[in-house]
Amino acid sequence: MLNQALLQQAVDSVRPLLGKGKVADYIPALANVDNTKLAIAVTTVDGQTIGAGDYLEPFSIQSISKVFSLTLALNLYREDEIWSRVGKEPSGHSFNSLVQVELERGKPRNPFINAGALVIADLLQARSGAPKQRMLEVVRKLSMNPTIAYDKVVADSEFAFSARNAAIAYLMKSFGNFDGVVETVLKSYFHYCALRMNCADLSKSMLYLANRGKTLTGEQLVTPVQTRQLNALLATSGLYDGAGEFAYRVGMPGKSGVGGGIIAVIPGDMSVCVWSPELDANGNSLAGTAMLEHLCQQLGRSIF
Amino acid sequence: MLNQALLQQAVDSVRPLLGKGKVADYIPALANVDNTKLAIAVTTVDGQTIGAGDYLEPFSIQSISKVFSLTLALNLYREDEIWSRVGKEPSGHSFNSLVQVELERGKPRNPFINAGALVIADLLQARSGAPKQRMLEVVRKLSMNPTIAYDKVVADSEFAFSARNAAIAYLMKSFGNFDGVVETVLKSYFHYCALRMNCADLSKSMLYLANRGKTLTGEQLVTPVQTRQLNALLATSGLYDGAGEFAYRVGMPGKSGVGGGIIAVIPGDMSVCVWSPELDANGNSLAGTAMLEHLCQQLGRSIF
Amino acid sequence: MLNQALLQQAVDSVRPLLGKGKVADYIPALANVDNTKLAIAVTTVDGQTIGAGDYLEPFSIQSISKVFSLTLALNLYREDEIWSRVGKEPSGHSFNSLVQVELERGKPRNPFINAGALVIADLLQARSGAPKQRMLEVVRKLSMNPTIAYDKVVADSEFAFSARNAAIAYLMKSFGNFDGVVETVLKSYFHYCALRMNCADLSKSMLYLANRGKTLTGEQLVTPVQTRQLNALLATSGLYDGAGEFAYRVGMPGKSGVGGGIIAVIPGDMSVCVWSPELDANGNSLAGTAMLEHLCQQLGRSIF
Amino acid sequence: MLNQALLQQAVDSVRPLLGKGKVADYIPALANVDNTKLAIAVTTVDGQTIGAGDYLEPFSIQSISKVFSLTLALNLYREDEIWSRVGKEPSGHSFNSLVQVELERGKPRNPFINAGALVIADLLQARSGAPKQRMLEVVRKLSMNPTIAYDKVVADSEFAFSARNAAIAYLMKSFGNFDGVVETVLKSYFHYCALRMNCADLSKSMLYLANRGKTLTGEQLVTPVQTRQLNALLATSGLYDGAGEFAYRVGMPGKSGVGGGIIAVIPGDMSVCVWSPELDANGNSLAGTAMLEHLCQQLGRSIF
Repeated sequence: MLNQALLQQAVDSVRPLLGKGKVADYIPALANVDNTKLAIAVTTVDGQTIGAGDYLEPFSIQSISKVFSLTLALNLYREDEIWSRVGKEPSGHSFNSLVQVELERGKPRNPFINAGALVIADLLQARSGAPKQRMLEVVRKLSMNPTIAYDKVVADSEFAFSARNAAIAYLMKSFGNFDGVVETVLKSYFHYCALRMNCADLSKSMLYLANRGKTLTGEQLVTPVQTRQLNALLATSGLYDGAGEFAYRVGMPGKSGVGGGIIAVIPGDMSVCVWSPELDANGNSLAGTAMLEHLCQQLGRSIF
Repeated sequence: MLNQALLQQAVDSVRPLLGKGKVADYIPALANVDNTKLAIAVTTVDGQTIGAGDYLEPFSIQSISKVFSLTLALNLYREDEIWSRVGKEPSGHSFNSLVQVELERGKPRNPFINAGALVIADLLQARSGAPKQRMLEVVRKLSMNPTIAYDKVVADSEFAFSARNAAIAYLMKSFGNFDGVVETVLKSYFHYCALRMNCADLSKSMLYLANRGKTLTGEQLVTPVQTRQLNALLATSGLYDGAGEFAYRVGMPGKSGVGGGIIAVIPGDMSVCVWSPELDANGNSLAGTAMLEHLCQQLGRSIF
Repeated sequence: MLNQALLQQAVDSVRPLLGKGKVADYIPALANVDNTKLAIAVTTVDGQTIGAGDYLEPFSIQSISKVFSLTLALNLYREDEIWSRVGKEPSGHSFNSLVQVELERGKPRNPFINAGALVIADLLQARSGAPKQRMLEVVRKLSMNPTIAYDKVVADSEFAFSARNAAIAYLMKSFGNFDGVVETVLKSYFHYCALRMNCADLSKSMLYLANRGKTLTGEQLVTPVQTRQLNALLATSGLYDGAGEFAYRVGMPGKSGVGGGIIAVIPGDMSVCVWSPELDANGNSLAGTAMLEHLCQQLGRSIF
Repeated sequence: MLNQALLQQAVDSVRPLLGKGKVADYIPALANVDNTKLAIAVTTVDGQTIGAGDYLEPFSIQSISKVFSLTLALNLYREDEIWSRVGKEPSGHSFNSLVQVELERGKPRNPFINAGALVIADLLQARSGAPKQRMLEVVRKLSMNPTIAYDKVVADSEFAFSARNAAIAYLMKSFGNFDGVVETVLKSYFHYCALRMNCADLSKSMLYLANRGKTLTGEQLVTPVQTRQLNALLATSGLYDGAGEFAYRVGMPGKSGVGGGIIAVIPGDMSVCVWSPELDANGNSLAGTAMLEHLCQQLGRSIF
């Protein structure tokens, strides 16, 4: 049964995994995180949130923000305006690869690899007056937490090490699939990634994915059909080059970030967020995946 | 509501798509199929099967057989014996590509691309006394149809044009990931592909995927956990390089074949088989996908 | 025998090829060139220059400048400082591909593809006080033509369409193989490419490659060994993805540019420059290659 | 000056390199070779042969045979019949890669990588009554050594480990670029590779490449133009993925084999063969390359 004890059990069960993964270290701001953090929070469609471990401690959500970005884009653009510029297929390559972008002439495989998320950020930049401010408003409202903020140190640090993402953006621009000024869009993109949120914030924010598009405050953020589509994309492409393994072990649509967070949902049921900074070889939280696996097994729940 | 009329409606709704796809023509035996065939059959977990269109007419199941092969392998081998030789990730390449097999040193991405299915066929060959006979017994029992047979013309024709698959098998052998005699395993593999079954046979046969591993006759073919895992693999890799789009539009784990058939399941609910020989650019049945999409929309059902 | 008549014959013999290639059109400044131009000039090691056709009409030398850049780098750096950052092998990919740069972790295959030339430009930027000015001085001296200048329109136009090269530079930067400010280095790089020189200028300038490193004015620009090495690199990598065909047909170390120029040398003998703006599928001057082939056949000369 | 003492000096100068490379070990018959062997032989266009070290000891010529195969094909086919099926460009990939063959739809990059040599072997099989016997006659005549023979142990051993080459052949067959029976052609191909010849045999045999197509016995094996073309192909593609480095250091058209032999020529001057079984990372003889480099430096000779 889903209760606080079960979540605590999930946390405890994965503690032996600490030390087996590797904290993201490509920028100092991420490398310095305490690698022993473990957290889980669940929000159910009836609006309840429970958590265990360090679930009230904020962390850098990183690529989890790609879910928010795509959702915002769905509010600003027609479907075909989005899907003519980014695909819906798993990439079969690492999250920051340029190979496929070149071979497929500038069209990224899906909105959750870096190339695809940069196209989405480019779309947001073009239609939002102040996209960074808008993003902040949205996540504050979704999580009902007005204190959520960008971590400027992380955002600036990402920008200082942004050569790879700049290369991706320029490559897409060379194929006519990037409209904005690269530096400007990158700055927005890195801010989205630098949002600091805790597991409770994130499980609350993602409830709409489990609740046919309805947020915790009852707003219809996206349609039920769009919600199903978002979950489908998360299931096939949300976990970098580990989506198959994640579906196999966990069986929930989900999205991970190199900060060690993973959000996942059981549609019609609940949204979950786990956090543990050490990553596996695919860049997904190692103990976080194990917590989700434990939870699904104990609850006997999965989309499959 | 799921009934014969709804299935008929699904068939009728896609008739305008005829002529927009392309029948597989790499062997004459497939090229000669009547491209106007349209069929759907559904088997529910309570054991009922209904159908519409040409659902009692047999066709070449082709790659749908890869589901049976993997299931048989799960009965003969420990999990790690299988997954050390084939991965669980979407490939991001076309179904018969050698590029990734070379780059990843002989380990295919998943059991549903040709390379992966050949490894599974190699496993079956090693442990089944008479794998072709065994496969036949299994599908006859699953479908409760003792008349199911191999189409020898198709099997021989495939073998005569088997250079690409031979190349894949030899490449894996060069990396130590193929034990048997290439010609022998290819012959078995092409026989599995050359099974002739109709939509009713296939929806009945696949019921175990919707029913926690239990077959129509009540046998526990695989465990509930294995069933979930099979569905997870189908959801992420079952539709060649169109798995993302299929999840987005249909939202069911599924597996397609170049004969124009697609099987799909809603776990806990039903298994479905559709058939229409014309294929889309990814090699999946064009009208078949549309029938499944129509069915899901009308029923308001999907795993997402 | 090498004389003006032979050169005129070379020009006349290729006139029927006009219209069979395609003028580079990625920037307007290049697209507007007169596609009927045909020119050849030869400078022999005894210091004589003869020419035919439009050999006194300047054109955009484009990638031919990569020979000057590498030569300047050899004057500023130790060999290992250069070859630790760029390879010496043919790439097997198109001149502006990022695939290999990513797969080989930021190290370009050779100094004559864009990636490699950008690394060389980065090296020049780091050690030359005013690299654009320095380049100008060098080519003016080599050609004994003080009027040679940059075409600002071309340079600015290239910069305006520089996304692909920016992507390459940023990708190398992400691997730690690009030190300078991308925009600054690109501006220098595009200036080198935008040098306007005629065939006589270029055949004179390249004489050092035929003359064991000695320039037309008798200066030892590089050592005899370095000269041999430069010629070796030109022979294997100087013609983009058409080096094999060029060696097969022409048999001279050479370097082409998308402006339609090609320089080539017979060591110990002569340097040649041809010009015809229409390019073949590999981006090399179509009629230019044919003129060189004609010349070699008539003279019975080749390095092979 | 070219004399026996100079060759002995070349041998002695590279002795310190022994132990720095790695003997080919993919088949036992090659792995068991004495890694301390060092040999060089030179044949000049006036018909003299001199040698030093183990230059009379036969070894497995392996890929050096690809030069003979292509030469024989030039005697049996029109140029366009050959070059429509195999390219002339450096591959930029390892010698046994399938990636490029797949991407370029079955057409190998050049006749000196395995894929290209298999196409040539397929051509020989189609037009020679007894291609293995014919090859033997040719090399015996070229070297004026009637005792040259195939090493059956090596040929059989290669065939037993032929999966990779079988994969390449089948892949080309799937694209319609391989006509014969794969096993039959592979057997011929492995026999060509299993020729046992010594450095004197090889330098004599290759004299036609230095002598405008004329063999040691005065026969015109290929035309002067074809000779130039063969040398051009060797210069750009003869050293696997190390052709650029070889041209840079040595400056002679050449061809290496994994048995540790390398043949090279200075057109108009001489043919050379070196042998040292330890290979560098590209599969070329490490000390062999160094001997050629030493020879060129001492003689002040190179094509560049």
